[in-house]
Amino acid sequence: MTPPVFDTAFAAQLDELFRWRRDVRHFRRDAILEADLHALLATAARSPSVGNAQPWRFVRVRSAMLRERLARHVDAASQAAAGQLTDPARRDRYAALKLHGLREAPEVIAVFNDDAPTAGYGLGRATMAETLRYSTVIAVHTLWLAARARGYGLGWVSILDPDVVTAMLDVPSHWSFVAVLCLGTPLAPDAVPELERRDWQAREPLAERLFER
Amino acid sequence: MTPPVFDTAFAAQLDELFRWRRDVRHFRRDAILEADLHALLATAARSPSVGNAQPWRFVRVRSAMLRERLARHVDAASQAAAGQLTDPARRDRYAALKLHGLREAPEVIAVFNDDAPTAGYGLGRATMAETLRYSTVIAVHTLWLAARARGYGLGWVSILDPDVVTAMLDVPSHWSFVAVLCLGTPLAPDAVPELERRDWQAREPLAERLFER
Repeated sequence: MTPPVFDTAFAAQLDELFRWRRDVRHFRRDAILEADLHALLATAARSPSVGNAQPWRFVRVRSAMLRERLARHVDAASQAAAGQLTDPARRDRYAALKLHGLREAPEVIAVFNDDAPTAGYGLGRATMAETLRYSTVIAVHTLWLAARARGYGLGWVSILDPDVVTAMLDVPSHWSFVAVLCLGTPLAPDAVPELERRDWQAREPLAERLFER
Repeated sequence: MTPPVFDTAFAAQLDELFRWRRDVRHFRRDAILEADLHALLATAARSPSVGNAQPWRFVRVRSAMLRERLARHVDAASQAAAGQLTDPARRDRYAALKLHGLREAPEVIAVFNDDAPTAGYGLGRATMAETLRYSTVIAVHTLWLAARARGYGLGWVSILDPDVVTAMLDVPSHWSFVAVLCLGTPLAPDAVPELERRDWQAREPLAERLFER
């Protein structure tokens, strides 16, 4: 196979993709085409992984009952988290945030990590077992980008008790919970993160993130 | 700002990027342009993060002495990991693998996570503190893709003792180690992972990774 040449136009478009990706909480109710969903997950499953262990496990939540239980659990966890905020102004801003689209998104996918995969033969994780989970996180990011490039959007839900969600979805005991994802078409694309628009937290300059030794 | 439209040509090129990304261990010695390096890191720093906490901390290793100490440590850790393989055939295959390009890559970047960032005000991680580190992992993946789109390559080194590397690089005590990255121009692009070409572990079908509830 001849290696592709990625020209500057593509690199610029990729930067646009990073810039317009967004964590989506407001979805249209339009379904995702079944073929698109499959293609997106197949792309995610080609992500890099430590030792090529491919530890990601995608659980498509199709049961309306399970989805509603999940949404109620996340609502309760969000309320509990609000209770931990001591600054009243920040508590108001928190109350104004929409934190998930679990009731509107056409697809909900829970992502787990297989902590004891047969694939990979342990390569690369003898001293850093967490690299398995990191691989699964990268698969989520791949899905995120691939979805946005096709006009879809993804929202990562993390305000929940992993043990509760794991029990709810009845998965093998050697799987550990990584994320709940809402997937669908965003209501309105935006170049600025919702948390920045709603005055929660702005982007900080690279200079504060870069060091030398 | 008008939202960009990502057409099918771009989506197809993005798929090519995912397909040709690779974990690179064989580098040319050509330097990375300083402007390119800065642009890549700035792109990585626009990654999604829980609560917009931006917990990634990039440490550019410029000291030749530190780089050599790092390379020796990884060599020793790789040998120790080899000793854990019981199957002689697999041990031979392991011995044939090149596991890092720490001595050739023009840039070495250690990535840490700030476990107590001021940014983000704790949003989204009350019940899942690990989402901070997951955000930093996604920044690494962003850097990986952005680099490949510009003809560069990245290799993630994980066969090392995180405590040793953390001490070596003398970072604040509330930072935790995530990755050592080699960055440069790959010797030869390839569509097939080195671990697959060298018969370590092949890609597995999506059907074995996808479940329903």
